[in-house]
Amino acid sequence: MTKVMICGDLAWAGVEAKEMFAGLAEIIPMDSPDKADFLKNLEPGGKYAGIVGVYRHNISSKKIGVFDSEIVSSLAETGVKWIAHNGAGYDQIDISACISKGIRVSNTPGAVDDATATTALYLIISTLRQFSKAERHLRKGAWNSGLRSGQAFDLTGKTLAILGMGGIGTRIAELVHAFPMRVIYHNRRPAEGAPAWTEYYPKERLAEFLREADVLAVSVPLRQETEGLVGEAMIRGLRKGAIIVNTARGKVIDENALIRALEDGHLGGVGLDVYPNEPEVNPRLLGFDNVTLLPHMGTETRDSQKKMELRALGNLKDFLVEGSGKDLIAEMRLRSRF
Amino acid sequence: MTKVMICGDLAWAGVEAKEMFAGLAEIIPMDSPDKADFLKNLEPGGKYAGIVGVYRHNISSKKIGVFDSEIVSSLAETGVKWIAHNGAGYDQIDISACISKGIRVSNTPGAVDDATATTALYLIISTLRQFSKAERHLRKGAWNSGLRSGQAFDLTGKTLAILGMGGIGTRIAELVHAFPMRVIYHNRRPAEGAPAWTEYYPKERLAEFLREADVLAVSVPLRQETEGLVGEAMIRGLRKGAIIVNTARGKVIDENALIRALEDGHLGGVGLDVYPNEPEVNPRLLGFDNVTLLPHMGTETRDSQKKMELRALGNLKDFLVEGSGKDLIAEMRLRSRF
Repeated sequence: MTKVMICGDLAWAGVEAKEMFAGLAEIIPMDSPDKADFLKNLEPGGKYAGIVGVYRHNISSKKIGVFDSEIVSSLAETGVKWIAHNGAGYDQIDISACISKGIRVSNTPGAVDDATATTALYLIISTLRQFSKAERHLRKGAWNSGLRSGQAFDLTGKTLAILGMGGIGTRIAELVHAFPMRVIYHNRRPAEGAPAWTEYYPKERLAEFLREADVLAVSVPLRQETEGLVGEAMIRGLRKGAIIVNTARGKVIDENALIRALEDGHLGGVGLDVYPNEPEVNPRLLGFDNVTLLPHMGTETRDSQKKMELRALGNLKDFLVEGSGKDLIAEMRLRSRF
Repeated sequence: MTKVMICGDLAWAGVEAKEMFAGLAEIIPMDSPDKADFLKNLEPGGKYAGIVGVYRHNISSKKIGVFDSEIVSSLAETGVKWIAHNGAGYDQIDISACISKGIRVSNTPGAVDDATATTALYLIISTLRQFSKAERHLRKGAWNSGLRSGQAFDLTGKTLAILGMGGIGTRIAELVHAFPMRVIYHNRRPAEGAPAWTEYYPKERLAEFLREADVLAVSVPLRQETEGLVGEAMIRGLRKGAIIVNTARGKVIDENALIRALEDGHLGGVGLDVYPNEPEVNPRLLGFDNVTLLPHMGTETRDSQKKMELRALGNLKDFLVEGSGKDLIAEMRLRSRF
C-alpha cells in the first residue's frame, strides 16, 4: 500500500486524518529522535522507506532539523514526490533542493490569514494605544503613571501601510477597514485580491508610501530577496514617530537598524511576533518602552491549527488521488516543469 | 461679562476654547488646591463667584473631589445652570443633587465610543488569543513555554454578547463584525442604533443570552441599578471557559464573584480596563494567568481627548448661546422639567 509520512504535530485533526487516508495510504508517523536516525530509516529496509508524500510541521525541526538539501535528497531517493507543509511560511524547507529533485511543496496560505492578521491588528492597537506598556505599568503597581494620552492614538483615520499584500496582508486590510484606517500597500505588482478601497504604491512611489505611513505592517514572506528588506533606508523613510509591526518573519527586518531607530526615537513604537533567531529574543528589545513582543503566536489558535492541519492533509490527499495538490508554493507555480 | 469655569484638564483644545468663547464669556480656570478653597471661592466675592456654566474633567477630583451634593449646592448658589462634563461616564457628579438644584448636565457620549470600543476589541483579542500572558512569558525569558494553542481561539465565528448596547456597545459590534463575530446583545429595550445583523435578547431570554456567549463585553453605565449587575448569577450563567471584558465601570461587576470564577476555572479569561476602586487594583487579579489588565486607558488617546474636549466645550457654548446644549444626560432627557 502507498505510504505517507506525518512529520510533526497533528494535534487537532488526528481523527480526520485516519478517515481521509483510509484505504488510500498507510500513515507512517515520524518518530525519530534525531536527524541521523531519520536519514537511516529513509534508506531501503528502514521504517520510512518507500514513502511518496510527507505532511510536515515546523515542530519536527526540534528533532531532525529543517528540511535541508541532505534531507530533501534522501526523501527524493526513497520516492517522495510531495511535501505538504503545514504553515504559510516554508523557509524551513530547501526549495531549490526540492526543485532540483523534483519534489513539489505545498503550504497552507489561506488557513493562517485570519489568525495572523488578528495578531497584526493586536500589535497595531497595542502600539498605537500604548497598551502593552500600560499593562506593564499597572502590573508593577504604578497604575497609569508615566502614560500620557498625547502619545496614544486612535486607529481610525490613520494610515496603515502594508508591505506585502498577500492573503495575510489582505486580511489585515479587511480588519482595519472596520475603523476605518486608510490602507496603502506596496507589492511588486498590484495584488489581485486587494480590496478596491486600498491604494497601490509601485516601486517608483516607495518613498511616498513610507512617508505616508502611520503604521508599517510587514507581511512579506522570507526569501533571499526579502531578507533585511526593512533596513536602515526603509526605516528612515518613515516619518518620525511611525510604528512598525511584523507578523511575517524576523529576518525580513534588519534588527540592528530597528533597534537604532528605537534608541534615537525615530520610531514611535514597534510590535513584533517574529524574530531573526527564534526562540531567542534580542534582550535590547526588552528595554524599550513602547514595544509589544509576542512569542510567535501568529497562528497559535486551536481553530487555525486545525484548519491548517486539514488543509495540509487535503493537499497531500489530492496529490495521491489527483496527482497534484492545491497550494503549490509560488516558486513552483511559476515553473513550467511543475 | 458672563463667566464660565474650566474645571480640570483642557490639554488639547486650549486654543480652540479661547476662540469659541471670545466675546461670549470670560473663562475662569479652576486652580484651587483643595475642596475648601474651591468652595470658599464660589462664595460672593470669590474668584469663581457668578459663573453660570462649568466645563468639568474627572481629573479635577484629584484636587477638589467629586461633584458631591455640597459642591453642587455651592455651584447652584452662585448661578451655575450647566455642567458640561468631559467624559461618557458621569458617576463623579451627584445627578440627584443637580436635578433638585436645577443644574443640567451634559456628557460627551459619541466622542469616546471609538477609543473605548477599540480598547474592548483589544481585550477580546488579548484574552481569546492569550496574548497578554504570552508577552509576560516572553519577557521573563520563557518564550512560548506553557502556552498551548488549544487554549487560544480565533475571534472569527465566536459569539460576542454585549451587555449594554449604547454608543460604545454599538461601536464594539461594528469592529468585531469585520471578522465576523456573531453579535448578540441585551438591553432593557432593543437599541435604536443597533446594526441589523445583531440579535436582541430581552430580559426573558437573559439565561440563553449568557449561555451562548463566548465573550461577554460589559458596556453599561454605572448607575444604582447596574452596580454589581454582573454578579454570581450572571457569571455562572456563562458557559465554562467563557471570557468577560469590561470597559465600562469596575463596580458594574461584583469583583469577588469574578475572582471566584477565575479561581475555580469557570471563566477562561478576563480583560479589564476598569476597577471598583481606581487607581487601586485588587492584587489577587495579578495572580491569574489569562487576565489582561489595563489602567483605565479606554479613552486615553490624543484624538479622542481632543474630540471630548471640543464636544464638552461645544455643549457649554450651545448652552450660553441657545440656552441648551446637546448631550443632555439620559436622566435629564426623560424629565419634563428639563
